Formats: sequence, C-alpha cells, structure tokens
Amino acid sequence: MVKSTMNQWMIETKGLNDPSIIERGHRNLIGNGQFGYRGTLTEYRKDKQVALNINNLYDGVEGKWRESVNAPNPLFQKFVVNGDAIDEAWNVVFHVEKLHMDTAIHERITRYEKNNTIITLESERFLSMESLNILAMRTRLKANKSMDITVLTATDTDVWELNGPHFSHFEKMHNNNERIVKGTTQEMNHTIHVSVSHTLGMSNTYNEDGLFGEQSSLQLKKDVTSSFDTIASIDINTNEYPLNTASFDELLSAHINVWIRLWDISDVKIEGEPKAHRALRYSIYHMLILTPPQDTSIPARGLSGQVYKGAVFWDTEIFLFPFFLQTNPIAARHLLNYRINTLSGAKKKAKAYGYSGAFYAWESHADGRDSCSDFNITDVFTGRPVRTYFKDKQIHISADIAHAMWQYYDYTQDLSILLHGGTEVIIEAARFYMSRMHLNVETNEFVWLDVVGPDEYHERVHNNTFTNTMVKKTFENALKVHALIKEQHPCLLGTIFNDADKRLLTDIENVLHTIKIHRPDQTGLIEQFDGYFTLEDATPDMLKKRLKHPNEYWGTSHGVAFPTQVIKQADIVAMLALFPDDYPFNTKKRNFEYYEPRTEHGSTLSASMYGLLACETGDVDYAYEYFMKTATTDLYGGSKQYAGKTYIGGTHPASSGGAYMLAVHGFAGLSFNHEKGTISAYPRLPDSIEKLTFKITYRDELYEVTITQDDYKIKRERDTQ
Amino acid sequence: MVKSTMNQWMIETKGLNDPSIIERGHRNLIGNGQFGYRGTLTEYRKDKQVALNINNLYDGVEGKWRESVNAPNPLFQKFVVNGDAIDEAWNVVFHVEKLHMDTAIHERITRYEKNNTIITLESERFLSMESLNILAMRTRLKANKSMDITVLTATDTDVWELNGPHFSHFEKMHNNNERIVKGTTQEMNHTIHVSVSHTLGMSNTYNEDGLFGEQSSLQLKKDVTSSFDTIASIDINTNEYPLNTASFDELLSAHINVWIRLWDISDVKIEGEPKAHRALRYSIYHMLILTPPQDTSIPARGLSGQVYKGAVFWDTEIFLFPFFLQTNPIAARHLLNYRINTLSGAKKKAKAYGYSGAFYAWESHADGRDSCSDFNITDVFTGRPVRTYFKDKQIHISADIAHAMWQYYDYTQDLSILLHGGTEVIIEAARFYMSRMHLNVETNEFVWLDVVGPDEYHERVHNNTFTNTMVKKTFENALKVHALIKEQHPCLLGTIFNDADKRLLTDIENVLHTIKIHRPDQTGLIEQFDGYFTLEDATPDMLKKRLKHPNEYWGTSHGVAFPTQVIKQADIVAMLALFPDDYPFNTKKRNFEYYEPRTEHGSTLSASMYGLLACETGDVDYAYEYFMKTATTDLYGGSKQYAGKTYIGGTHPASSGGAYMLAVHGFAGLSFNHEKGTISAYPRLPDSIEKLTFKITYRDELYEVTITQDDYKIKRERDTQ
Repeated sequence: MVKSTMNQWMIETKGLNDPSIIERGHRNLIGNGQFGYRGTLTEYRKDKQVALNINNLYDGVEGKWRESVNAPNPLFQKFVVNGDAIDEAWNVVFHVEKLHMDTAIHERITRYEKNNTIITLESERFLSMESLNILAMRTRLKANKSMDITVLTATDTDVWELNGPHFSHFEKMHNNNERIVKGTTQEMNHTIHVSVSHTLGMSNTYNEDGLFGEQSSLQLKKDVTSSFDTIASIDINTNEYPLNTASFDELLSAHINVWIRLWDISDVKIEGEPKAHRALRYSIYHMLILTPPQDTSIPARGLSGQVYKGAVFWDTEIFLFPFFLQTNPIAARHLLNYRINTLSGAKKKAKAYGYSGAFYAWESHADGRDSCSDFNITDVFTGRPVRTYFKDKQIHISADIAHAMWQYYDYTQDLSILLHGGTEVIIEAARFYMSRMHLNVETNEFVWLDVVGPDEYHERVHNNTFTNTMVKKTFENALKVHALIKEQHPCLLGTIFNDADKRLLTDIENVLHTIKIHRPDQTGLIEQFDGYFTLEDATPDMLKKRLKHPNEYWGTSHGVAFPTQVIKQADIVAMLALFPDDYPFNTKKRNFEYYEPRTEHGSTLSASMYGLLACETGDVDYAYEYFMKTATTDLYGGSKQYAGKTYIGGTHPASSGGAYMLAVHGFAGLSFNHEKGTISAYPRLPDSIEKLTFKITYRDELYEVTITQDDYKIKRERDTQ
Repeated sequence: MVKSTMNQWMIETKGLNDPSIIERGHRNLIGNGQFGYRGTLTEYRKDKQVALNINNLYDGVEGKWRESVNAPNPLFQKFVVNGDAIDEAWNVVFHVEKLHMDTAIHERITRYEKNNTIITLESERFLSMESLNILAMRTRLKANKSMDITVLTATDTDVWELNGPHFSHFEKMHNNNERIVKGTTQEMNHTIHVSVSHTLGMSNTYNEDGLFGEQSSLQLKKDVTSSFDTIASIDINTNEYPLNTASFDELLSAHINVWIRLWDISDVKIEGEPKAHRALRYSIYHMLILTPPQDTSIPARGLSGQVYKGAVFWDTEIFLFPFFLQTNPIAARHLLNYRINTLSGAKKKAKAYGYSGAFYAWESHADGRDSCSDFNITDVFTGRPVRTYFKDKQIHISADIAHAMWQYYDYTQDLSILLHGGTEVIIEAARFYMSRMHLNVETNEFVWLDVVGPDEYHERVHNNTFTNTMVKKTFENALKVHALIKEQHPCLLGTIFNDADKRLLTDIENVLHTIKIHRPDQTGLIEQFDGYFTLEDATPDMLKKRLKHPNEYWGTSHGVAFPTQVIKQADIVAMLALFPDDYPFNTKKRNFEYYEPRTEHGSTLSASMYGLLACETGDVDYAYEYFMKTATTDLYGGSKQYAGKTYIGGTHPASSGGAYMLAVHGFAGLSFNHEKGTISAYPRLPDSIEKLTFKITYRDELYEVTITQDDYKIKRERDTQ
C-alpha cells in the first residue's frame, strides 16, 4: 500500500456527494503527458464521465467536431456477494478519494455495509511516468466475515465522448493471460489497442452491455485484506505490443523515481500560508502530469477529456511555457518542436485565407490542422450555431509562438532550435503578418484590421493593441534571429534565409517604426482597439442583469458585452504583464485600474495576468486574490461549465501555469537579464507569506531561489551543495 | 361633388374588412410633398394609425429614436342622431373608399342603416398642391328621413406616434371663426399651429379625451344632401398665420390645375395590359404626392408615417431621382439641394468617425444629422437591441449622392448646380473615401474594408464590389467636375478648388487605376465581396426552414442569412443595372442567373434592379414579374411589417421609382448619350404590352416617346404640336 507521508501532498475528497462526480473527475485527474485518466471510480461508466484521454490523437465523426479520442476504459470493476452487487444500494459507511500529488496516484477507500456485513474496497492507480503506455491499479478487499466475492473485471467499450462515436468497431479477445480490446476509429482509422492482465487470472469471459472482461471469484477471510493488481497497456497505431513483464510494485517504483526527480526541480514552497502552498502545489501537479514526453503539446483542458476538442491553444506558449522553460527545458523544447513540426499546417492555413507565411491554428490538432469551427458557439435562444471569429481572426497566435521560440533561445542560449526549424517559425510568422498588413493611407501607419484580440468578447476589431504589439515583437525577433545567425553562423546564412526572406527582412525594417500601436494618453491609458473608448462604459455586474439566460454567451455581436467596454479577459493588461519593462509604472497602474473593473474574467487566462500586473503596480493584496483564484481554479471548481450550449468543463492548465508565474515572477519578482546572463529578484510577497523557495534551471545551471519579505537569495546548486 | 371621369384613375376599396385598416392607411395616402395624410376615416383615432405626417420636421423623446412629427389631426368628425352615435354599431350597408390618382383626392362613401333609418356619409379631402399648408375636406350627409344630426368636429391632439410623445403641451383656443391648436414639441421646441374653420360655424366648444372642437347641429331633409366644408391650415415654426380666405371650391380648382400639369408630363401609359397600367400609374401617383416643393427630400416611407424615423435614405438618389430628373428637373434639383444644404452634417459625421470629407447620413434628418441608431434592430428572442452597422459602415451613401449630382449636370447640362455646392458634395465625398482607404501592402491595391453594401444581411464585409465601384465613380466624377470647370469657368477654378482639393485630385489620379474591384471570373461571375463565394451556398427557401421566429431578422451575425450566400437584395445586380454599359452581355447574364436564386428580395429596393438587369439580359418575362412586384408593393400590400421587433410598415416610394425606371429604361430601353445630347430607345416590351407612351424633359426640351413591340418614336414636343 502506498501512503503519502506528508499530508500537504494530498488532496482528499470525502463522501460521495460534494463536490459532484463530474467535478471530482476533473479534480482528481492523473496523467503522464501521453494519457490522462479522470478521477472517477472503477464502478462508474460513461454517464459519470469516465475517460482515459489520449493526447494528440484525433478523430472526427461526420457532421460533428473532430476531437481527441478517449480509449476504452480498462479498469472497470464490479463486486458481487451472494448475488448481491456491492453498489449504492449498500450503506456507504465511509468514502474517501485521495489524490497523491507527489506520485500522481489516485487512491480510493470505500466501506460498504448491509445487514451487518462490512466490506472495504480500496484501490490505487497511476499512469506510469516511466512506461508511458502503462496504467496500473491495485485493488484491495476486506470484509468482517469470511465470504466468496464474485469479481467482474472488464474493459468498457461504451466510451464517454462529446462528439462521437469515434470507434467504428472493436475487436475483443482473450489471448494467453491478456484481455485485448482493439478499437478502430471512424475517420482516421487510428487503432487503440488496450491489453489488460490481472492477478486474478483470466477465466469466465464476460461480454455484455459494452463490457468485455472476466468474472472471477475471490475468497475473503474475515478481517484479512485480499488484493489483486490490474495492469493495462494502451498502444496506439502500432502492431507491436511488447508484453509487460513488470509487476505492479516494479512499475510503481520506477514511476515514483521519475516523480521524485520532477518535484525536486519543480516544487515551489510557500511558507506562512498553507492554503496558498497547497493550491500552488496542486497547480504545479497539474502541469507535471502534462509534461510532454515527446514533441507534443498540451491541450487547453489538459488531458481531462475532449473539451475544446483536445486541441492546443496559445495557452501553451503564453501561460505554460515559462514553467517548463525554467524547470524542464527538454519539455519546453518538445512544446516548441510541436510547433516546428506543425508549421506546414500553419502555412496551409495562411494560404487558405489568401495570406503568405504561417498562420497557426487557433485550436491545433495533429499536423497543425485547425480544429476550430467557424461556428464555435451555439446560441442558447435559437439553438443555432453562431459565426465566431476565433479561427480566422485571432491572428496573435503566430506571434505568441514566435515569442516563445525567441524566449527559448534567449533563455537557454541554445541556438540549435533556431537552426532546426525555429527560425522558419519566426520568419513565416512575420511573413504572415506582412501579408495581412494594410497601410492606412491617411495616417501613413501600418495596421492590422478585423482581428480578435485576447478579449474575445469584442470580435472583428481594428488595431488591437496586444495583437499589433505582438506583431511588432515578431518583426523584431525576425531581425534579431537574422543578426544572430549572421554573427554566429555566417556560413549558414544563405541556407537559412533565401532571397524572399531577405526581402521580407528589408520590408520589416521599412515598416517597423510606423506600425500603429495605441500609445498611452496623457494619463497613461492605452486603448484596447480602435474605438474601444467610444463603447458604452459598463461593468460586468451591470451586464449580468441584462442576461436573459444564465448560459448565454457574452460575446459575438448579440452578446451583452459586445457593445460595451466590458471585456472577457486581460488584453491591454496581458500585454503590460508580458512586457513590463516596455512601459513606465504610471502607465501600468493607470491601465490596471481602468481595465480591472471592466473585466469579467470570463476566461481562466485572465486572473494571472491581472495578478502579474498587480505585482508590478504594488497592489500585492489584489495580486494575492488573483493568485488564489488562478491557483484554485480546478481545486475548488466552480469555473464555467458552458459557453452558449457548449460544454466546456475540465481542467485549466493555463490557470496552473498562471499560478506558477504569479508566484515566481510576481511575488518573487524573478527576472533575467539575458544579455548579461544574470538573474535577479524583487520580492513583493503578500503579508501572509513568509518565504518562497524554488529552483530553476538557467543556461545549464541549477539555481535555488529563496525569497523572504525583505530579502532574497539566488544560489547556484553547486554553491549550495 | 368631384368625380373622376376615368376609372383607371381611381383606386377603389370596398367594404371595411379587406384589406386591413392599417393597409388602407398606407394605400390611400394623399400628400403634397410637405404633408402626407393617411388613408383613414374621419371617425378614426390613433389606434387606427391616423396621421398628418410632416416632412423634414423631427423631434426626439429621451431614450427613444428621433423621428418625424405627426401633426394633430384637424379632420376628426363624429355624428349623432337622437343621442345615438353613427358608428360600427349601425349596419354598414355600403362602404367604399376611392383614391383619385388624377387629383390626389381621397373620397369615402358610407351608408349606415338602423331601424329603417338610412344615413349616407360622404367626404372628400385633399392636401393642396397649390397652397401647401392647406388640408381641405367637404363632408356630405343625406338621410331617408328628415332629422337633426349633431355633428362633432374636432382636432385630435391624441396623436399616433411610434416614439412619442413628441408634444410637450398644446395651446387650444377658439378665435374668431377658427379652432386653433398649437402644439410644441419636447426636444426641438418646434411649433405646429393647426387652425381649422368650417362652414358649420364655431360654437359649443368640445374638449374631451384629446379632442378639441365644436358640437354643431345639422338639419337634414329627407333625401336631400347637406354638406359642409372644413379647411385646415398647418403652419410650422412661424408666428405668422395668414388667414385662408379661399373657399373649398377655389382651393380645389387651384389644386387640380397643378395636378393636371404634373400628370401631363409624368404619366406613362401602358396599352394592352390594364393591370400593369394601373400599377404603374399608382406608382407614379406615389412619387407625385412626394414632389419636393422646396429643398427637402423624400423619406424612405414617403409621408405615410414615422417608420424609419421619417428619414431620407439612398433610396432618393438611386431609385427616385431618375423620375424627377426626367419629368421635373426643378424637383430633382430640390432633392440635390437638400444634400448640398446638409453637407455640413455629412462633414461632421465623417469627422466623428475620424475621417475627412463628407460621410452622408444613412438616415438623414434635418441638417444632415444621422438618425440611424447603432442598434437598429431589436432581437426577437432576447428583446435586446442588436448592434447594426447601417450607420457607420454603409459608406456607399456619399457616392450615391455624388453620382446623382453628376447625373444632374450630365443630363441637364446645367452647370449652376456644380457652381453652387454640387462640386463640394462630390469633392468631399471623394475626400471621405480617400481618408477611409487602405493599401493592401501584399497586392498593392487600394481597398475599402469593413463596410456594408446594399445587401445588408452581410455586414462588415471587405471590398464590396458595389461600394468600391461607386467609390471609383466618385473619384472619376471629381476629376470630371474639375476638368469641366477648368474648361468652362477657368477663372472660378481657384475659388472652387483650394490647394487641399488639388492635392486630393492628384491623389485620386494616383490611386484610380489600382482600386480593388472584383473582376468577372472566366464565366463572367463577379464576387459580391471578399470571400462571398466561400460562404454556404443556400437559397431563401432553405433559410426559411431554419427560422425559429417568423419576425426574426435575417442579417447581423446571428441571422440565418449571414453565414450563407443568401442576400437581402440586389447588390452586384444593382451595380450592373445602374451601369449596364460597363459590362458585356454575358457578364450581366451570368450574374443575374447566379444571384437571382440566392436573393431573398427582403428589401423592396431589390425587384426593380433585378427587373432592369433582366431587360438587359433579354429575360423580359422575368422583368415583367419584377415590374409587377415593385409596382404593386403598396397597391396590394403584403410587404414586411416587421424587422426584428421594429415596425416597418408604410409606403415604399423607392418601389414606385423602381417601377418607373423599369418601364422607361427597362421595357422601353430609353437611354441617353449625354456627350452628343441624343436620346435613344431599345424596345423590349413584354408580350402582353402593346404600347408604352410617356414624356420626358431633356435639356429644356420636352419629348414624347412612343414604344411598340418593334418600333419606337421619340418626338420633340414642338415637332408634335
């Protein structure tokens, strides 16, 4: 039996009623970057959103959205005593679910009672961080009387799906000591091969109601625990299925070893405020279970299901990338390689819209295909899909990626990424913006019109300041990359930059200083886009009163926010938080104070940016509120479950990333001077936090950072040892 | 008693039930350009939409739309016999309403019966075309028994209003032999002075329930008609009220003399198809009652009420102007002077949106103020106003006006209009477009982005072909005007064109040949705007099935048409119909055939353009259908009464103008070579029409045109006399 020795490493959920089963599924998610397994119980089926979600594997059913695939659940179990199934009809004396964050193990303990018979069911499971295709579980049973228990173990082919059914057919068989279910998907002919072995042995095949498995018998002696292990192997698109020969204990041990290493570098300790500590740890946990093991990225709802189609958004580069860059540069590079490998998809998208260069997918699927629909919202009043512009007009996505690409080099000084595709990503992003640029003939400024910025409640705006700033950064990065390669690898210059690229760089130099970016007015206030200040001045509370349906979408031209200054999420504030050195204190303060009461925070991407800026403006109490909000998004639940008629529940990795940034860059004020290669901090801890401790890697060195209310230490690891 | 001797000059409506009272109000409208009086009965009140609508006078109530003002109704009458009111409780044996189109006289005859008492009530009324402030009525009563009848005559201050109440207070008095009601409006302090005299004499003041008037007694002798006359004078914003001394008969005679002259030049006779003849005559009637007596223009719903706020749209310049230009150039000049006089409003509007030049009001009120709301539609599902873009993005309006301005000169060779403001209208329109222009840096084309074209179901499109074509025409007209004045009045050149204008003209020359206008593809098809062909291909019938509410608006981003190729009205087709010489036959044919099944004709501006183009493409049968549709819009009723939750009922002058154009330019194929000053025709009459006869004035000459199936004659009047 695995036990966490430290309670602050554990999230405990007692009883069966609060929070809901659906919320627990999000909250107690385990994962290993390749798979996610929701925090549900072994007796649950698809109505309770059981899911073994697969990263970067997509399939579509005609007329519905293409989305990530959930594998058949290999862990279904049911127990029967004398023909009486042990289920909700029994009295549940005690129930607890424990998420062990140190090891990413999900544990459950349930004690059932009926007619003085007491049976205790325990199990724990993990998705191996060492053998990525392995899902392992140990089950324990104990009773207060000796008895025979019938055990039904099965793979559940009745899969929970939002836009399914994705499996056209299943092959089911028992072979040697394995139960095998092989599903083939409708559209892409993906094969998902789920083989299961367990220590009860395979006998008495059961095949009913979507459940394919075995019926075994287990003899319990009074007050003696009996246990058995289940080991599942999930193999995707391969005909080679290496037999797992390791035992549960061996797998567990290897798994834990990886997790020890992960936490060693990733943990951020908060002293003085246990709630904050726990929430931050929980946030980091959620990023660690998404650590990309290969050149994949991270879906916006993690691996908690198919919401947002299992697609990758800008969340990765802007909200998650800093954590991985600073704690696990190899994983950070995986994230960027995903974008390098999907560049062709981004080029195709640009071309399809009549532009040049690379226009990355707003919702990226395999090959960089954009899974975003032109009708991404369903109107609650008419039930009709509504034309939305996330896909075709939220153009800042390419710049966000180019920004992360440059950041990676700047941070690591590892030029190889730029020599192996990174330069092309930046150049093609710049080329895209150049081709989507217009000259305002009257003002002689270069402009980007008809876009959607981070604030998605205002679609189709002109000269969104965030967007134009990101475009300018992209242009600057393109020039910097060229200068860098020219200096360090002059002989490669002709290979990496062709004639068209050189013309592009000349064009960039010509336009760079006449780009329209709304400047601060005399009070420091910056307009979010052309005409924003002419909109009705309102607050989110005012708009709530105008709602005619609780789930109605605030954006699109019919939404309550559209004609007003109420915004969904940080926009100008995000720009100031990302580039705090570009604007003086007063500007940051003025904009924080202006935009804050006008922001709904209808996106979980919002709070962290406000928190970061609040640290810059000295409003640490505010920042702490935002920190707790972003760090507990999934811990406490309560985030929006619907946008229009579309289900959007699941975990929020970007919130987790935001919590990390807020702690490390906000409260600790950690910053880098990449030119000099120095690290500094600027402590601005909330009153209740005494101390903040964390590690980062920077240019192949490990540093330990300690922040107190009025001091900080940054030590290289070798100095400390 | 006035009788029309020719029945084809009369629109007769029998009975009280079909069509509805509201439809009759539209259908039997009378007017004199300054006032309109709806086709209602003297006993009706505001619930039946009685209105004496005033042109070019507007007032607003806080929180509601500013709109045209309806004057208190001076013609209310009620009759009582022995304490028994003669109303619907009586048996209506016979009822007819006659609209005499030759004289714009409304006549009603009603025979009531109760307990063998039969009373016949007759009246006829007209808005004097000679004394514009006069509304006159003769009332006749006859009974089958001798009796005393109590007559209540009153001015009804309980005015029908859509966005009222506009009157803050009324002064009411009897003075000498007059009943005077003077109303003052809330916002603008307009005064409307309504004085009434009648031949019963003023006695026994009555003042109840909004009715201010007199109670008189009338002795009827068995089978002998008794009559009395009512003469009202409506005077606006003046303290001088000239006493009317003319009798009903004198007023009538002067009025008829004017109408004889009007019809003499305006009538278009159709032989062989009486229905078509009647419908066209009815259309011309509706334009004649709107003939501007001074420098005012024509509201989109004529003078039938306050719908569309009583505002002036592009309907005037594109759909009505040709009729007046060809039959009454003085009136045409009034229409243009209205735009010259409202140029300052157009300049203010441009400036308010950050542009230069003149951006004319989409819904023009006094001073050129735009009465169009940013929220012009109310969603039927939520009851919330929806942001619409008619006002700020339907930029072709300035070009439409500039086009009419140049047409006036080209047609009349009367340069004076260009020397007295017309040039400035064209130049400032061009300046506006220049300031709203962008350069697509990738394609090196000048573009107009984010506009609304004639097809209002697709808001916020880029490079609407109609719009860009009109812009180009404006640019060309600016160059032509300059060349013309340079040639004919070189000494005025420096006065009319300042240095900024000269720079503008140079800029125009530089951009004129790189304006983006979608060209016909190899099949001749022209795209309505960037990306139109990527929209879902659908038909209006398909979309009707998607409706969730009968009155829901098809446009805005939530409307059923928005994501499809279904368009509200002629757009590419309007361009081809307006400039048939710019494109070859095949292009016109291809586009007619492509766009026709995709057009809802949700605007009454649509049918005439399709009909005109159908004449060009040889589809005369189609053209005839469109002709009948546009010519009978108000005669048969049945047009849309609601857009979203907004009432839009009333008359449709642009449909009338379209019917005229279709007859004269479509069927007759009348065209001008302004360079040579010649007129030609190209008969393409529908089979059932034998002959078409009409007059036009052209450059101070009067011509009589006769069109038969295979021949035509154009004779100058002096040659024919």
